[in-house]
Amino acid sequence: MARPARSRGGRRRRQGGAAGLRQLPFQRLRYPYQPFEILSADEIEGIHQASMDVLERIGINFHLDEAREILQAAGAEIRPGDPRVRLDRDLLAELVAKAPARFRSHARNPDHDLDYGGDNANFALIASTPNVSDLEGGRRSGNFADYQDLIRLGQSLNIVHQIGGYPVEPIDLHPSIRHLEAERAMLKLSDKVGHGYSLGRERIRDSIEMVRIARGVDHERLLTEPSLLSVINANSPLQYDRPMLLGIIEMASHGQPVIITPFTLAGAMAPVTLAGALVQQNAEALAGIAFAQAVRPGAPVFYGGFTSNVDMKTGSPAFGTPEYAKTVLIGGQLARRYGVPYRSSNVNASNAPDVQSAYESQMSLWPCILAQCHLMKHALGWLEGGLCASFEKVIIDAEMLQMMAEFLRPVMINDDETALSAMQEVGPGGHYFGCAHTMERYETAFYAPMLSDWRNFETWSEAGAVDATRRAHGVYRQILADYQPPPMDPAIAEELDDYVDRRIAEGGVPTDF
Amino acid sequence: MARPARSRGGRRRRQGGAAGLRQLPFQRLRYPYQPFEILSADEIEGIHQASMDVLERIGINFHLDEAREILQAAGAEIRPGDPRVRLDRDLLAELVAKAPARFRSHARNPDHDLDYGGDNANFALIASTPNVSDLEGGRRSGNFADYQDLIRLGQSLNIVHQIGGYPVEPIDLHPSIRHLEAERAMLKLSDKVGHGYSLGRERIRDSIEMVRIARGVDHERLLTEPSLLSVINANSPLQYDRPMLLGIIEMASHGQPVIITPFTLAGAMAPVTLAGALVQQNAEALAGIAFAQAVRPGAPVFYGGFTSNVDMKTGSPAFGTPEYAKTVLIGGQLARRYGVPYRSSNVNASNAPDVQSAYESQMSLWPCILAQCHLMKHALGWLEGGLCASFEKVIIDAEMLQMMAEFLRPVMINDDETALSAMQEVGPGGHYFGCAHTMERYETAFYAPMLSDWRNFETWSEAGAVDATRRAHGVYRQILADYQPPPMDPAIAEELDDYVDRRIAEGGVPTDF
Repeated sequence: MARPARSRGGRRRRQGGAAGLRQLPFQRLRYPYQPFEILSADEIEGIHQASMDVLERIGINFHLDEAREILQAAGAEIRPGDPRVRLDRDLLAELVAKAPARFRSHARNPDHDLDYGGDNANFALIASTPNVSDLEGGRRSGNFADYQDLIRLGQSLNIVHQIGGYPVEPIDLHPSIRHLEAERAMLKLSDKVGHGYSLGRERIRDSIEMVRIARGVDHERLLTEPSLLSVINANSPLQYDRPMLLGIIEMASHGQPVIITPFTLAGAMAPVTLAGALVQQNAEALAGIAFAQAVRPGAPVFYGGFTSNVDMKTGSPAFGTPEYAKTVLIGGQLARRYGVPYRSSNVNASNAPDVQSAYESQMSLWPCILAQCHLMKHALGWLEGGLCASFEKVIIDAEMLQMMAEFLRPVMINDDETALSAMQEVGPGGHYFGCAHTMERYETAFYAPMLSDWRNFETWSEAGAVDATRRAHGVYRQILADYQPPPMDPAIAEELDDYVDRRIAEGGVPTDF
Repeated sequence: MARPARSRGGRRRRQGGAAGLRQLPFQRLRYPYQPFEILSADEIEGIHQASMDVLERIGINFHLDEAREILQAAGAEIRPGDPRVRLDRDLLAELVAKAPARFRSHARNPDHDLDYGGDNANFALIASTPNVSDLEGGRRSGNFADYQDLIRLGQSLNIVHQIGGYPVEPIDLHPSIRHLEAERAMLKLSDKVGHGYSLGRERIRDSIEMVRIARGVDHERLLTEPSLLSVINANSPLQYDRPMLLGIIEMASHGQPVIITPFTLAGAMAPVTLAGALVQQNAEALAGIAFAQAVRPGAPVFYGGFTSNVDMKTGSPAFGTPEYAKTVLIGGQLARRYGVPYRSSNVNASNAPDVQSAYESQMSLWPCILAQCHLMKHALGWLEGGLCASFEKVIIDAEMLQMMAEFLRPVMINDDETALSAMQEVGPGGHYFGCAHTMERYETAFYAPMLSDWRNFETWSEAGAVDATRRAHGVYRQILADYQPPPMDPAIAEELDDYVDRRIAEGGVPTDF
């Protein structure tokens, strides 16, 4: 079913964050079609009931006394000293129902505020990889220079809605102060919605405070305006660890959204059957969502799905597989059942930005779009199952995501568009290149790619026969050469620097968590 | 909505046409999900009514007296000497309604018989390219040696359901006898459903007769058993030319299916708006389908959709674009409205088997699958908008299609699959590698790729860091090295050779069509 399209002119200007780059404008994307569903309502109910059985009969470990006390206060039964909490399905339903169906995240540039839930789609830059690569420099350990360049790319590419975390881990920064330097760079190099890491209490508090400063708002306002996101991973199967639980407590207490994401690899940390892995994903996700609501009713949360499979011969995780495609779609159905915004990811297991990386990504992207995920993490740049951020892959993904954005622009059916008069003018055997109907529309009629090369073979060969991955290298270098940081009020920059300098002088945070 | 899955064991044996290659078995694929639709029923009706207006008010040229006489006999008004025929919507509806909703094509190996219509999916090897390439030999003009190798690949790969035509044009064979040599090679090297070209009357008659001989059936039986397919392209806009009309007449008269395919490039041979291009596609397709029914009521036909767009800066055709994705989906909705099997295609405009070729293909494949096309032409091997067949791309596409086949295997939700007992056994913090539930299933639980490499970066690097396109080269070479021709009764082979030799001795067919 189609809905009316947005106005055409605004979407079609080739403007944006990077001078000289032909790209779509920054836009808040919406899903105009129905979601694609591969399970019946009864089958979804079957997964739901099985996951309730898991939480009631097996339970889930909360490795933090404070967390169990919060759950107890909300009505759960706990046993002193025992991390295992068995959650009653009625209590769970009551808590999950408190999660908001939609909310807005605020960027330091209000033009980049984002909506989650409903029919909204958002794409986040890759996050949390230990390595980084490009064709020229090869693969190297994460470092602060590449970290900053990746943020610059994310800021420049209009199809990137938000920074998804550290695009690569800057391991040349000492862990005690890494989050301070990294968060400051994120906030200065980009004015899009950002991210903080829930590695215990102090780090996420620092991140929240720095985002507050960068946005120029007070604590009270921050409490009602989500301004950064944080991912909470279950330690599957059926465990939440201390740093993550502290992260939920801090983020929810400050009104900031957490993305509850079990990482349920079928055959490793989850049952080998997709149904079983999904039941476990659902149990873990709901337990985390319920906990966030116990911390603060109405706390913004995402239902995160990340069920893939391992290669049973080697134990290697696989991504962008047919199995992954199905679990992404079913995850969307589950999130809709609970009325919670859905997070999924654009993934692949390739070691190079080659055709495998592209087709595995597409086996992720299409299900993400069809499932209508509200937040697509790792939407740009991911390789090696998340062990490496690739500069070229960022550009390849930007092209693929732009194509998806265009796919989400409905075909209009009306007299002007069906063009009977143009067909009468041209007639059998004619051509449409020069007719008025064409001339009025040709400049904006079709998607114009940033990476794809549509010249014929001869012209392409004479120009050096440069394949798409090598073209992506050139595109990313050009974007970095053209990059201009977004403006920041000098007073705010000073306040942010003072905060970071003071916290560094204090020694940052302990690193023995 | 899911339906019950087929039995698991049979689908999972790693058997097949190529020794040593790990691939899925040959299988008749079915769509277990609902089709994905992006237009409302009212909007589809809007396209339908507009295309009826086109056929009634503008009309369409049939450049063959005999064809217009057939239409006249069926009730259409024609004017002597005027190729333009205006088709009344009632007559058109009456004729189109005679087309069968489903039918079976018979291969010379009955295990390779295929069903079209309903929930059946079929993938055809690339066809009709003038050039061919591989990484080692580079790009070259079509020739008979590569032609035969591509047929051998199509025979060996179980995911290939049928040979879609000449996978590359063997231009080193003289046009007068090319169809005889090419068809003989197709029939001897493969026992899958094949193809003939509707280049006038004699060629397609030769092809039909050769297929009849190869199948070892008489003319009467052939009339009720479709055994080869032929594509009929409109000469867009709004024309059918003499060779194509003769092809419809011969194929339909012999009970053989034609794939009626307008090639409606928006902005060139069709209006620049997608709605307009689809209206024209629909008008041309229905006119061709109606004509086939006028030739022989009940003649098997496909509704072919091939609406893409041009790059308005250069005029180059573009494929695998967001626009193409939408028209493929809408084409499926239109074909379902008329109850005629749907043909679509796996396309891209890349000059190399690189990431562009992969992501543009995926922008075609997903819509083809979601639209539930019954015949996917050019499903393997296409590059350059159809100007080149790539050996490596055949393998890349085979992997992508196998992944789609696995995607079409529904997730089962039942007590055995939801695995509560396994979760109870493993418990929080455990792992599933060794548990009984895993051990019983791990060998067949997940799709095992033929091309993707899931080893970690270090292992992959030590093994030479071979990217997926270069791996595809090795896979195709190995398949050709392992190839064994399918058995053929020596008496049939002799009869086929006698026919070809006699027709060659007669001089083949005139080449001045």
